[in-house]
Amino acid sequence: MRILNQEIPSAVGQTVTVAGWVHRRRRLAAVSFLVLRDRSGLSQVVVKAPGTLAQLDGLGEETVVQVTGTVAANPQAPGGAELVDPVIEALTEPAHTPPIELWRPTVNSGLPVLLDNAPVTLRHPVVRAGWEVGAAALHGFRATLDGLDFTEIQTPKIVGTATESGANVFALDYFGGPAYLAQSPQFYKQTMVGVFERVYEVGPVFRAEPHDTVRHLAEYVSLDAEFGFVQDHRDVLAVLRDVIAGMLEAVGTRAAGALERLGVELPGIPEQVPVLHFSEALKLAGADPDEPDLSPADERAIGEWALREHGSEFVAVEGYPMVKRPFYTHPQPSDPRWSNSFDLLFRGVELVTGGQRLHRYGDYVAALRARGESAEDPAYSSYLQAFRHGMPPHGGFAIGLERFVARLTGAENVREVALFPRDLHRLTP
Amino acid sequence: MRILNQEIPSAVGQTVTVAGWVHRRRRLAAVSFLVLRDRSGLSQVVVKAPGTLAQLDGLGEETVVQVTGTVAANPQAPGGAELVDPVIEALTEPAHTPPIELWRPTVNSGLPVLLDNAPVTLRHPVVRAGWEVGAAALHGFRATLDGLDFTEIQTPKIVGTATESGANVFALDYFGGPAYLAQSPQFYKQTMVGVFERVYEVGPVFRAEPHDTVRHLAEYVSLDAEFGFVQDHRDVLAVLRDVIAGMLEAVGTRAAGALERLGVELPGIPEQVPVLHFSEALKLAGADPDEPDLSPADERAIGEWALREHGSEFVAVEGYPMVKRPFYTHPQPSDPRWSNSFDLLFRGVELVTGGQRLHRYGDYVAALRARGESAEDPAYSSYLQAFRHGMPPHGGFAIGLERFVARLTGAENVREVALFPRDLHRLTP
Repeated sequence: MRILNQEIPSAVGQTVTVAGWVHRRRRLAAVSFLVLRDRSGLSQVVVKAPGTLAQLDGLGEETVVQVTGTVAANPQAPGGAELVDPVIEALTEPAHTPPIELWRPTVNSGLPVLLDNAPVTLRHPVVRAGWEVGAAALHGFRATLDGLDFTEIQTPKIVGTATESGANVFALDYFGGPAYLAQSPQFYKQTMVGVFERVYEVGPVFRAEPHDTVRHLAEYVSLDAEFGFVQDHRDVLAVLRDVIAGMLEAVGTRAAGALERLGVELPGIPEQVPVLHFSEALKLAGADPDEPDLSPADERAIGEWALREHGSEFVAVEGYPMVKRPFYTHPQPSDPRWSNSFDLLFRGVELVTGGQRLHRYGDYVAALRARGESAEDPAYSSYLQAFRHGMPPHGGFAIGLERFVARLTGAENVREVALFPRDLHRLTP
Repeated sequence: MRILNQEIPSAVGQTVTVAGWVHRRRRLAAVSFLVLRDRSGLSQVVVKAPGTLAQLDGLGEETVVQVTGTVAANPQAPGGAELVDPVIEALTEPAHTPPIELWRPTVNSGLPVLLDNAPVTLRHPVVRAGWEVGAAALHGFRATLDGLDFTEIQTPKIVGTATESGANVFALDYFGGPAYLAQSPQFYKQTMVGVFERVYEVGPVFRAEPHDTVRHLAEYVSLDAEFGFVQDHRDVLAVLRDVIAGMLEAVGTRAAGALERLGVELPGIPEQVPVLHFSEALKLAGADPDEPDLSPADERAIGEWALREHGSEFVAVEGYPMVKRPFYTHPQPSDPRWSNSFDLLFRGVELVTGGQRLHRYGDYVAALRARGESAEDPAYSSYLQAFRHGMPPHGGFAIGLERFVARLTGAENVREVALFPRDLHRLTP
């Protein structure tokens, strides 16, 4: 019966069996140390018997082995215990030498080497830590929304029209006709508010992004939520705040080891995220009051303001100009130049976009007409059907998983924390 | 402050506000009943005031309204209470008449009508019940595997090669070059066993299925699990059994209302699923011992046997001929004509396929060569890299969500329980 490496310290004096990968071998004069890696961490095996020493010489790093031995206390060993008098059995043929030294505590290779060899480099405890944070964040996202009575949905990724934004869409051959990969589940999640009131979806979205930047991927994991019977976008922001808090809490508890390996301290999010109107934000940043968007420098200034004035690393900017938002955005009732939408900034950089949507059929017809489009366009017919038959005031938000994790862990490039990233130049592994 | 319909019975005597869709209006001589639908169910509102009666006449079914009234006990009302003396406020313009009568307890429309108008027909309490079962099943899948220390992964759906099966793959234009939609996360989930030992993924898979059947979709939700350090496929079957049990339990608790609306009773799954070897299964079904596969009639006979002999609606058939299984399948050590793989049958129909995979690099080279392929093929290079650098004995399984729900609920066509299905003829809504 196999135990995990993390269970070794509580088995001192017993004979146990562990299994995993040969993480490292250290040969001294009369003794060798085998460091074994399994999903729970590392353990140390002390090899002294001449036959076993010779066997170990043939078992290169990454060979999968099973080790039976006696647990002995040793304050110098990881967890304060190690295996002695081991019997080692190889579970595979000896492994080839890995493309990077997985046992080194820090990663010294450049990103191309890491990505080209991801099937193996992801095994490095620091490299894999990025995804551990991501997996924990997914759990926190779902758990928070489950607790708020949301229903999970999974909507099609193959769609008939490239409506939301004609550009940057991947086209495919669908049984001889044209189809596209969904750039977001926006239309479907709104539609499903008509069915379940509160919905979320975790799934891939696709952007044929022609720019090679550290922030963009051609495929990424989008965490989408949408819900009905809101007063306005402030209700959406309140749920987003709870979701971010839930994600941070899940990362802190479920990925504690990963945070330690990455040397990351989690931020806190206040009960009430400070909110600035877009027009105040421009003023605060010293920008031209007619600017339709915030520059990176503006966002940094706003982030500093929130930290200084509210002790918060999070700040929301609401009221972005309608001209910069998608057609389904709800205007600010008191002044329709502005919108009932927001960006949530974290440490002075945009993290999440959300807001209230239009919910009256007539408003959709008008909004499309104002943009030179038509509600009669077949591309919109299923989407608009939901509104023709009654939709409540609603809103939602979308979080890009890889970007969220990169911001949280301080990764400079989203590719560092994505599993097998896709971009302009990369389609493998 | 809005309360949900399901909270009305515990608020007798109080003035409350509810909100939702006008599900049905029933006009009697001196009184009208408004049945209001929200995410929690239905409630009854009694309208007597002449002004409110006139207002109600203008609010067609599916109009979104908010109702403030006094809760009165009434044994005839749903939940034993109703709202009286209501003030009704429309939250949208009056809704158009829905394409089907959503208030009828049973669904009388054909599947094409339901699917063509899915944005609205999914609101029918019986139609939406299918997805409620699906969402609960997803929760049970993840919760069970989280409890077994699995790590969630999300792997690319855009892939560079159509390796697993050259046919039935969707091709797309990837920045001017060819790419494909992943038919399964098989290669990635195996690769990730080298990183996390135990992984699962919930996500879309894509099959350019040229046949129009009640069982096939061009895009469906696949629930994949894969894990290392197994003895053989029986360890995989044991985890699958726990996962199915967890999914059934989640459906029973989280989708109890949906099961009731569908008139479905959940099956039990025994602690030990009965197992038959493929060769015994042929014998039992009275089939030719040289048959390489089980016919639907064979599967039914085996299902009947399991129910008769073991009182189980589930039965596993192990040992399927290697010639019928993918190249990564692990052979049965005692007789390599057979495989260490299985199908799990439910009520005499295949529900899940799983098994042990090859784990030695040399075995992959030989298996590919035996099928006329080469380990040097760039299509396999990243996949095989994981095996060259040490992989434990491992296995896994994949559950098609829509098929699982259809079998469970007795739906004749998987399209009945899919959200916005995609097939040879359908790309919208």
